Amino acid sequence: MPLQNESFLQACRGERPAQTPIWLMRQAGRYMPEYRAIRSRVSFNELCRSPELCAEVTLQPVDFLGVDAAILFSDILVVFDALGIDVRFEPSPVLSAPVRTEAEAKALRWGDPHETLGYVFDAVRACKRALADRVPLIGFCGAPFTTLSYLVEGQTSREFERIKGMIFAAPAVFAGLMERMTTLLCEYLRGQVLAGVDALQIFDSWAGALAPADYRAHVLPHLARLVDFTRGLGVPTILFARGNANLLAQVAELPADVLGIDWSIDLDQAIRVTGPERVVQGNLDPMVLLGTPALVESKARDIVAAGRAAKAHIFNLGHGISRHTDPAIARLLVEVVHAASASSTTSA
Amino acid sequence: MPLQNESFLQACRGERPAQTPIWLMRQAGRYMPEYRAIRSRVSFNELCRSPELCAEVTLQPVDFLGVDAAILFSDILVVFDALGIDVRFEPSPVLSAPVRTEAEAKALRWGDPHETLGYVFDAVRACKRALADRVPLIGFCGAPFTTLSYLVEGQTSREFERIKGMIFAAPAVFAGLMERMTTLLCEYLRGQVLAGVDALQIFDSWAGALAPADYRAHVLPHLARLVDFTRGLGVPTILFARGNANLLAQVAELPADVLGIDWSIDLDQAIRVTGPERVVQGNLDPMVLLGTPALVESKARDIVAAGRAAKAHIFNLGHGISRHTDPAIARLLVEVVHAASASSTTSA
Repeated sequence: MPLQNESFLQACRGERPAQTPIWLMRQAGRYMPEYRAIRSRVSFNELCRSPELCAEVTLQPVDFLGVDAAILFSDILVVFDALGIDVRFEPSPVLSAPVRTEAEAKALRWGDPHETLGYVFDAVRACKRALADRVPLIGFCGAPFTTLSYLVEGQTSREFERIKGMIFAAPAVFAGLMERMTTLLCEYLRGQVLAGVDALQIFDSWAGALAPADYRAHVLPHLARLVDFTRGLGVPTILFARGNANLLAQVAELPADVLGIDWSIDLDQAIRVTGPERVVQGNLDPMVLLGTPALVESKARDIVAAGRAAKAHIFNLGHGISRHTDPAIARLLVEVVHAASASSTTSA
Repeated sequence: MPLQNESFLQACRGERPAQTPIWLMRQAGRYMPEYRAIRSRVSFNELCRSPELCAEVTLQPVDFLGVDAAILFSDILVVFDALGIDVRFEPSPVLSAPVRTEAEAKALRWGDPHETLGYVFDAVRACKRALADRVPLIGFCGAPFTTLSYLVEGQTSREFERIKGMIFAAPAVFAGLMERMTTLLCEYLRGQVLAGVDALQIFDSWAGALAPADYRAHVLPHLARLVDFTRGLGVPTILFARGNANLLAQVAELPADVLGIDWSIDLDQAIRVTGPERVVQGNLDPMVLLGTPALVESKARDIVAAGRAAKAHIFNLGHGISRHTDPAIARLLVEVVHAASASSTTSA
């Protein structure tokens, strides 16, 4: 059955729908009382492993905000189930067995995600059933570097001393792990597409941990392999490298359908880097949603206007929505983006 | 008495000394066993408030590393003594009384730093005595935005929700606090110069928390006032805004004598932004010092070579040195920078 709202996928293909499509990173989450109600009954880990609850949470912002795409409720770290490594959320993630030495790296058992992550694919199917073709469903994973950073650091890090220490002191160990991690992520995303997702987003959330020369030498080739692989899966890929807008020129060398832009760069400047033939997604600072409605409207209109210089534009935040956000303000943002882009099309 | 080693101050003035001068951010700190020996006897707060111990710690890297400048051992947060606010280090800083509302902002008592921060000025004098004109002494403060971020967040923050919430929801309260904070910092730096420091560095460590348009609107005017003020103090000013190389173009509009560059941008690209008539300082990723000696030497040589495109170059790390660094590797870096820059001058 065709989707009732195709605007997000049209933009992914480089077409310009009547209104700028919008979804919000972390749109299913703690800022929504309906989400908190479910989390009061089950832990984060239980929620990620319950396909029916994942579907319920995934649809909450579709119903309330009126966004143009759903994103599977899950976490980039569930992929560690394929390595038999537990992740506790306290509330930030802590891994049961970080990998820091060559011996620990060699001892890893790389399981088959098609076997070990079946609950994610079940969740995709449950989401698709619940969505009933209202809007497309986005699947996702962490990029190889970001995922490996968690594996080596063992938790969220500020300075990334362990993973960078590995890159600089034991580059061959790092490269071997990146190779295996990339292969795992390829299969994990293939499983999501086979289960029915309509698009994929790759989150390189910790890209900004590396200087440009090191990102190019140690990360970009693996990311390129992942993006090349997903292009063969038949759905569009969004590539979002966060934390250093300086890396955008490198990331834009890869053939991702859509380039995610974080809030650290003005969107018009970002489009000068990517060129006018690319599709961009972004990039309102989520903290603006803690401000007045007038400010939200003004900043959203600026970004809609800037987005017209790209081949197509998907509105999003430049980072995940804050848990302190008033859901009504998030809904206002969706309305403003739709109205502003529709009226600017008319006046063009 | 003239300094025995003037190379750092020559570079600050835009001259090119025989060797590229080098010092390392956080060069007096936990990676040095001599520092840890002192910290085993006194707390961080006691150390900051003991002029003689500050002098001892300040000189440790001058003796061991052979750097071309000393930087006063202190912390950007001691300035809160002027507001009667205590900071505990657990080990990251926690303020006794964060300021989040307009009422709390109005209730602040802005003390005179010349009265409340006398121990810092005593430490400057003790350092100068101990240095006996071997190398110049750098004083410093946090930039207004960074200092205010701590006051509002109450601790180190990852997302800066409270300070950004204030900017977006109560911009007049934020602006009033920035105005007062800037005035306080002007007087604090004046006190350091009166006590004898030879140069100043302003650390805008959290600059990267704001999108470019917001940094320009809400931060840059106050930073400009501080830099204009320090230029009247008769010593060179280094301005180091960290976390978003995208802000470098804005920061370079200010007349600081030296622009500090963090590691998130290649130095040659940074110099293209600042132009060839500016003095730059930076920018080796401190985590490179966790790598092999060959890698340290290779990366240091690249940065020395790139620095030749600027009017003058002071070698430094692009962020504070890691506590996991082997002091011998830090000393190797100093030797490599001196040797590489001397030989490149000869061959030119």
